[in-house]
Amino acid sequence: MQTLFLIGIGTGNPDHLTVEARKTLAEADLILIPRKGADRADLADLRRQIVASVLGADAPVVEFDLPRRDPALPYLKAVEDWHDRIAAVWAASIPPSAKRVALLVWGDPSLYDSTLRIAARLSPAPKVRVVPGITALQVLTAAHGIPLNTLGGDFTVTTGRRLRDHGWPQGATTLVVMLDQGAAFEVLEGSAYHIWWGAYLGMANQLLHAGRLDEVGAEIRSMRQAARAAHGWIMDIYLLRRVDA
Amino acid sequence: MQTLFLIGIGTGNPDHLTVEARKTLAEADLILIPRKGADRADLADLRRQIVASVLGADAPVVEFDLPRRDPALPYLKAVEDWHDRIAAVWAASIPPSAKRVALLVWGDPSLYDSTLRIAARLSPAPKVRVVPGITALQVLTAAHGIPLNTLGGDFTVTTGRRLRDHGWPQGATTLVVMLDQGAAFEVLEGSAYHIWWGAYLGMANQLLHAGRLDEVGAEIRSMRQAARAAHGWIMDIYLLRRVDA
Ligand SMILES: C[S@@+](CC[C@H](N)C(=O)[O-])C[C@H]1O[C@@H](n2cnc3c(N)ncnc32)[C@H](O)[C@@H]1O
Ligand SMILES: C[S@@+](CC[C@H](N)C(=O)[O-])C[C@H]1O[C@@H](n2cnc3c(N)ncnc32)[C@H](O)[C@@H]1O
Repeated sequence: MQTLFLIGIGTGNPDHLTVEARKTLAEADLILIPRKGADRADLADLRRQIVASVLGADAPVVEFDLPRRDPALPYLKAVEDWHDRIAAVWAASIPPSAKRVALLVWGDPSLYDSTLRIAARLSPAPKVRVVPGITALQVLTAAHGIPLNTLGGDFTVTTGRRLRDHGWPQGATTLVVMLDQGAAFEVLEGSAYHIWWGAYLGMANQLLHAGRLDEVGAEIRSMRQAARAAHGWIMDIYLLRRVDA
Repeated sequence: MQTLFLIGIGTGNPDHLTVEARKTLAEADLILIPRKGADRADLADLRRQIVASVLGADAPVVEFDLPRRDPALPYLKAVEDWHDRIAAVWAASIPPSAKRVALLVWGDPSLYDSTLRIAARLSPAPKVRVVPGITALQVLTAAHGIPLNTLGGDFTVTTGRRLRDHGWPQGATTLVVMLDQGAAFEVLEGSAYHIWWGAYLGMANQLLHAGRLDEVGAEIRSMRQAARAAHGWIMDIYLLRRVDA
């Protein structure tokens, strides 16, 4: 019976790795790494670097090419189809002799990540074990030195698309936005919210900005655009809190 | 100038420690550990064990007694007053010669934790640096092998008290409940939700249960009561998802 270990590796700083992640990697007899595709080349490099730092140059790594999404299909159908094809590539890359197979997952495997859903498509079904990792949420709050929640309060985590489509969730005090293609906070009345923003968190080119949304929103938008132009890609996340909270 | 490092240590498994946490601990010239008080004795032991595993027996540890909350004061006033008194104890325990002072924080310092608020009371104000840690949320989802969010969906994290007082948040698909004194899920219509529950996550006595709430709610309640009676304390957390999500 095979076991598939989904190992959370944190968000860009190799020091985010936990002792558990290091031990699990060290005991793997196969480590699957995506070569290119949907992923940025520099992120694939980071995965290689992490593996090499734990296991040295002769780690049992197998690289594979991530298939691409079919742009002709409707969104949900395209995602389903894409997950099917990734599962097929994994299956083809894993020899039956490999008993402990490791996959490195950005941040934590539970948070806006498809690895668990793809693993569920494998047949015969392997045992799946998740090793938790540091998420972008925690690296954001750590970098700003702020709490996620107000005292005894709740918080909601959502996507840029949902913020644009549905606005501020009713009754919410704190909202964290991930997977934002643009700057969805522009749908909000800026004077009512504080924002704490971060991009490339944990990496050498980390960017931070914070303030009342009507005072810093435009600056964040231009920092975001400039950074995206300079690097060719961006990953950012932000926490919004009602000023009256 | 002093720097205060708030180091997230995960939720009970010493292997949750990150490389960054280990390095920061190793470079501290003073490590503050609460001896007893609000904290459980076995959790204080865990902190000592973590420090010893990184630094050996002659780590520069200073233990302090956590003051107790004044039960005569109204809740918020009692918390404010308690934080003031903890800050005073820290100040008294840290010699001015200590340049890098470390505090070990359960889970992640941003999540339902007062350490940042207490640190903000110190005068003169030290530099505060947060080292992110694995949270109970991630250990829960990892143990059950489930994602936190549905595909592209949002999720809310709240307290047992808020679930009891306000019921299911309007429009929510996924709700994670922490800091529950009882079993606040009993306010919900059980047939409409799935629950994934965990207690003592990451520890040797970890407990897990899951299912449709109307089928497993009563079992979770009795597991919880029995475990609490056996250990004298319990920490548990659960994720609820609408059946129709
Ligand atoms: C597909 S999700 C994966 C999240 C990941 N599993 C985690 O635990 O953080 C990618 C989103 O996470 C956030 N993110 C991940 N890494 C980040 C980083 N280093 N800096 C800023 N945001 C990041 C961004 O919102 C990005 O759009
Ligand atoms: C004061 S909060 C601290 C949370 C912590 N900062 C974190 O990041 O997980 C304590 C609550 O966290 C949850 N919790 C913390 N550790 C846990 C564990 N090992 N097992 C289950 N729940 C835990 C419980 O809901 C508990 O009531």
